[in-house]
Amino acid sequence: MMDERLGVALVGAGLMGAYHGETLARRLPDARLVAVVDPVEAAARRLLDRIGGSGRPAAGAPRWERELAPALADPAVEAVVVATPGWLHADAIVAAAEAGKAVFCEKPITYTLEDADRALAAVERAGVPLQIGFQRRFDPGFRRARAAVADGTLGQVQLLRSITRDPERTDMAGMPPGTIFRDTLIHDFDMLRWLADSEAVEVFALADALIAPQLKPQGLLDTAVVTVRFANGALATADASFSAAYGYDVRAEVFGSDGMMTVGNGAPDTAWHFSRGGVTRPQVNWFLDLFGHAYVAELAHFVECVRTGQPPAVTGQDGRAALVMALAALASVETGRPVRV
Amino acid sequence: MMDERLGVALVGAGLMGAYHGETLARRLPDARLVAVVDPVEAAARRLLDRIGGSGRPAAGAPRWERELAPALADPAVEAVVVATPGWLHADAIVAAAEAGKAVFCEKPITYTLEDADRALAAVERAGVPLQIGFQRRFDPGFRRARAAVADGTLGQVQLLRSITRDPERTDMAGMPPGTIFRDTLIHDFDMLRWLADSEAVEVFALADALIAPQLKPQGLLDTAVVTVRFANGALATADASFSAAYGYDVRAEVFGSDGMMTVGNGAPDTAWHFSRGGVTRPQVNWFLDLFGHAYVAELAHFVECVRTGQPPAVTGQDGRAALVMALAALASVETGRPVRV
Amino acid sequence: MMDERLGVALVGAGLMGAYHGETLARRLPDARLVAVVDPVEAAARRLLDRIGGSGRPAAGAPRWERELAPALADPAVEAVVVATPGWLHADAIVAAAEAGKAVFCEKPITYTLEDADRALAAVERAGVPLQIGFQRRFDPGFRRARAAVADGTLGQVQLLRSITRDPERTDMAGMPPGTIFRDTLIHDFDMLRWLADSEAVEVFALADALIAPQLKPQGLLDTAVVTVRFANGALATADASFSAAYGYDVRAEVFGSDGMMTVGNGAPDTAWHFSRGGVTRPQVNWFLDLFGHAYVAELAHFVECVRTGQPPAVTGQDGRAALVMALAALASVETGRPVRV
Amino acid sequence: MMDERLGVALVGAGLMGAYHGETLARRLPDARLVAVVDPVEAAARRLLDRIGGSGRPAAGAPRWERELAPALADPAVEAVVVATPGWLHADAIVAAAEAGKAVFCEKPITYTLEDADRALAAVERAGVPLQIGFQRRFDPGFRRARAAVADGTLGQVQLLRSITRDPERTDMAGMPPGTIFRDTLIHDFDMLRWLADSEAVEVFALADALIAPQLKPQGLLDTAVVTVRFANGALATADASFSAAYGYDVRAEVFGSDGMMTVGNGAPDTAWHFSRGGVTRPQVNWFLDLFGHAYVAELAHFVECVRTGQPPAVTGQDGRAALVMALAALASVETGRPVRV
Repeated sequence: MMDERLGVALVGAGLMGAYHGETLARRLPDARLVAVVDPVEAAARRLLDRIGGSGRPAAGAPRWERELAPALADPAVEAVVVATPGWLHADAIVAAAEAGKAVFCEKPITYTLEDADRALAAVERAGVPLQIGFQRRFDPGFRRARAAVADGTLGQVQLLRSITRDPERTDMAGMPPGTIFRDTLIHDFDMLRWLADSEAVEVFALADALIAPQLKPQGLLDTAVVTVRFANGALATADASFSAAYGYDVRAEVFGSDGMMTVGNGAPDTAWHFSRGGVTRPQVNWFLDLFGHAYVAELAHFVECVRTGQPPAVTGQDGRAALVMALAALASVETGRPVRV
Repeated sequence: MMDERLGVALVGAGLMGAYHGETLARRLPDARLVAVVDPVEAAARRLLDRIGGSGRPAAGAPRWERELAPALADPAVEAVVVATPGWLHADAIVAAAEAGKAVFCEKPITYTLEDADRALAAVERAGVPLQIGFQRRFDPGFRRARAAVADGTLGQVQLLRSITRDPERTDMAGMPPGTIFRDTLIHDFDMLRWLADSEAVEVFALADALIAPQLKPQGLLDTAVVTVRFANGALATADASFSAAYGYDVRAEVFGSDGMMTVGNGAPDTAWHFSRGGVTRPQVNWFLDLFGHAYVAELAHFVECVRTGQPPAVTGQDGRAALVMALAALASVETGRPVRV
Repeated sequence: MMDERLGVALVGAGLMGAYHGETLARRLPDARLVAVVDPVEAAARRLLDRIGGSGRPAAGAPRWERELAPALADPAVEAVVVATPGWLHADAIVAAAEAGKAVFCEKPITYTLEDADRALAAVERAGVPLQIGFQRRFDPGFRRARAAVADGTLGQVQLLRSITRDPERTDMAGMPPGTIFRDTLIHDFDMLRWLADSEAVEVFALADALIAPQLKPQGLLDTAVVTVRFANGALATADASFSAAYGYDVRAEVFGSDGMMTVGNGAPDTAWHFSRGGVTRPQVNWFLDLFGHAYVAELAHFVECVRTGQPPAVTGQDGRAALVMALAALASVETGRPVRV
Repeated sequence: MMDERLGVALVGAGLMGAYHGETLARRLPDARLVAVVDPVEAAARRLLDRIGGSGRPAAGAPRWERELAPALADPAVEAVVVATPGWLHADAIVAAAEAGKAVFCEKPITYTLEDADRALAAVERAGVPLQIGFQRRFDPGFRRARAAVADGTLGQVQLLRSITRDPERTDMAGMPPGTIFRDTLIHDFDMLRWLADSEAVEVFALADALIAPQLKPQGLLDTAVVTVRFANGALATADASFSAAYGYDVRAEVFGSDGMMTVGNGAPDTAWHFSRGGVTRPQVNWFLDLFGHAYVAELAHFVECVRTGQPPAVTGQDGRAALVMALAALASVETGRPVRV
């Protein structure tokens, strides 16, 4: 009896990696999680234990690997899902591509253009598919906005807005400088490009340490506003914060000559509470409540692309273009001037 | 290698059965669809073909059975999901219970109290679990409303409302009389009981053939309003229609001494379109867009209950109590008078 | 120099009367408040003091009258606005009509059919205009719903809903029995008639003392649900409560073969507060925040009708028809049976 | 008999002037419109005719003046409402101040800093009150947002947003360059200052002729995005368009360390239409439907300030500070660089 499911190795068993791992093991019938690669055994074990409870046949249970190499050497591994810290993405992509594996890589593609180009070159040489984890593109609301741009419903796109505000984060002390641009606003840069259907030509950014001024000396910026001019004339803003008291706030707005579309903050709980304190609807404090379905959908798309040979809808070039915008925003903050892309 | 997944036979491969079948085959890693029972081979084949595309091992592929008996004789079948037309529910429940299988039965439990009591007696004799498919209880919004009642947030419940309006249906000609009460408003009766946390003591109903007056001679009512008085004093209304031009409309409202909660019409698409024609949000034309997640969640609950021995949260008695209300509403329409339950 | 403004006497300087008085004195340039009639001098003085601060010419300042008769004898009084307690409405209407004055009367027209018919007969004999104070008909949202019925946008009306829930009231001890039907739900009965564009043929009501059970012995009902069947087949529900913890709640819903319209709870404050406690929009605790504009608009309409000879849009017959429904609801509660109208 | 109402001369009977004129004549019982000054007799007559229908005493009817001087010479004129084109504001303010009249001036205070300073100096010398027409400050929603900043509800303000999008305008051909900053975004600049509770220190603007490229050669920009850094660290964006297909769109958003408030787009029509085309709420195509109440409230405030000696809440310095931001935005567009204020 042959297993026709796509064999996948997961690299990185952190928060996001663990969710992808569960998706591969339990939410996607056409995928099979073969190995979990993480130098921290405890992280991998936590994930494997959770999955192991599934009652699947023992023979098919995924195994832990400390290093990527042995996993890549396993012919049962047909694809790799990269969910390591961002600065390790390029090495993982290169190694996987050179081993001939299809690659799904969490955003950002990498932290530097050099690394990005190195990874893209390896992927191209190997001729393997590469998909970047911009999961918002798989959310029904954001998709409808894109469709309204693509089919002309909104006319000529003129103004755009995208925001990403995290709930009150407690991990700011350990963040590398530039996190707000390279890890957070990277989502917005991708969304703006996608919805503007054009490339950025000028970026201006203001950023500050308004939430944690004590971390400013080490270069951490926690609040940012970015303005973008696109090649087709559209003007856009994005903003981000690491501390929204009211929970996740992820929205986009596309304004065109024939109308506007707004999307975001979708959550499955429709309960409105009318009390002496006012009329309250639920807030979202966990990103998987906002985007769990989209994370599953992007991996399902990846699995199907690998199985059918269809190219993924979110390419390595998309990952690179968003990174270019993030780096331009960083440069703009440093110089105090708009930066041409 | 032993398969630890729960083996399930599906009885009835119609619209709802097909979705449950796909859920068992592809969405629940802890379940295994062993057999699809349907006298109409084509219906079963359509479902099996769709599932077959999953690439699961051939040895585990579900098979078609024309009759329930052979499926019940298979020791690999540990549980049965009943999704036949309502008037056949009792026989399937009785047969499955007598074969010692756990039973999940779509709503309504049956069409008559005699059948319901016969089914419940068989289940009790066999000591098997029985869960009724009131999937709204598994929707996050409706659950929050229930929680707000149960934990006292809303105070003493005084007024309730529940509505079910289908999109413009094209299958009205074939409906048995009473469908609007026994098949549609049965959801609302269950919801009202659950949210009132009390039993109905009086039911008054008005109903008419406003959408399809030509079907009135054969007894088909397509529009109904029901008033219910509960034992704890709460007063409730429900209404239903077979033809909402704007798509599905499923809502509930609980009003108590300390506040109100409203729920319903949750859909994953958050796009608002602002055009010359006004400001438009998406409508929902497919019931799985509203409740797909809840149908999966109720089966996941059932599978877990069977595996752990925990009793299901929606019991056969719940199914019977909602049926009692539906029959009282029918009697009220016939007599033009309120009916004591 | 002649004053071309319509001279009006206000009868009753309670809460509603005071607002009407201010409107006549300060919000309607085409009206002039000539006299405030109230046996309680302090109530009249409070209103006159508030108006007096307006700096209008002393010669035009309104005066206090203890009795209606002297005001009616004043030729400067061309119209009377009746805002006394409901059981005194008929006498005031009759007296004003017999004096040849135009009459605006707060809802309900009266408390009994005998009184209503007596008042209507006097008005007809005198040939004076009579408008009833159903101010919801002058709210932009409710008007749009009516227009959508009248112009066929919604198709054939099939289901309706109207609710009136007051904030937590502190005056329940002094209410006469039947208040919830004759004073509160009377608004809903008018709205249902207007939106159904048809007359009630059957009324069924459930009511109880759920908020203040201690007042039940004296006949006070504080929570009610009413079902109405209209001559054109439309089915409707209404509910009312004297104690909504979350403030005013006044809504209507019209469902027809071609769509639905929902209206209500309009308030001028658009601020949404996103906090750690959730997402909150303002609630409305003061009925003038909901309907202040509509109370002004209905008087403006009345003044214009009197000046132009055009008949008022809300007639005495409208007042009577809503009273008929209220009395039927009361009878239904007493008999426990639906009442044919 | 003495008239205690405040005598006001209106200068400019265009769209906004006409509404202010009607407000003074018919909506504010404590004001009296004495004269309408406009070189275009027809414009003044149209307004006077509309007001004349009010039935107020002929002796009090306002008169037309071609020039401001005669109106200023009239001792019955105690205050002047300036609603001329923006480039004429300074002369009117200076003349009125020198005549000792209180001044209400539509936004912007003037078009140049020189004119603004000249006007402010005249006002200071004369010791008369000056209020600028930023009416959003008198809208209940915007006021609540300001209150939430002022009372600390939102914590430290970190991110702000303000937008102004007009419906599809047909008067673009005649606009002076800079209109989008000096006449439109001036509202947003005031709102951002007010809600940030701080002064702008840096402004960056992108603008283009996306709607009417054919007007670009004459310098007209119709779409703009502005970024502002405030002295207290808060970062803000504003955007504007002269052509929103979906009608007026005026919103603000304040994000602070303890939460967020969003406001705007308040309209009196609460009707939601659920049809085969989706779920639609009314749009707003007329600015008075959005802000009619606020225009009345600002004049009522002005009248009361003049009568009581209390200083107006929106001062000439407020007008100047917003103009400074508008001019900085213009300079930023010209230089392509951020501009320090």
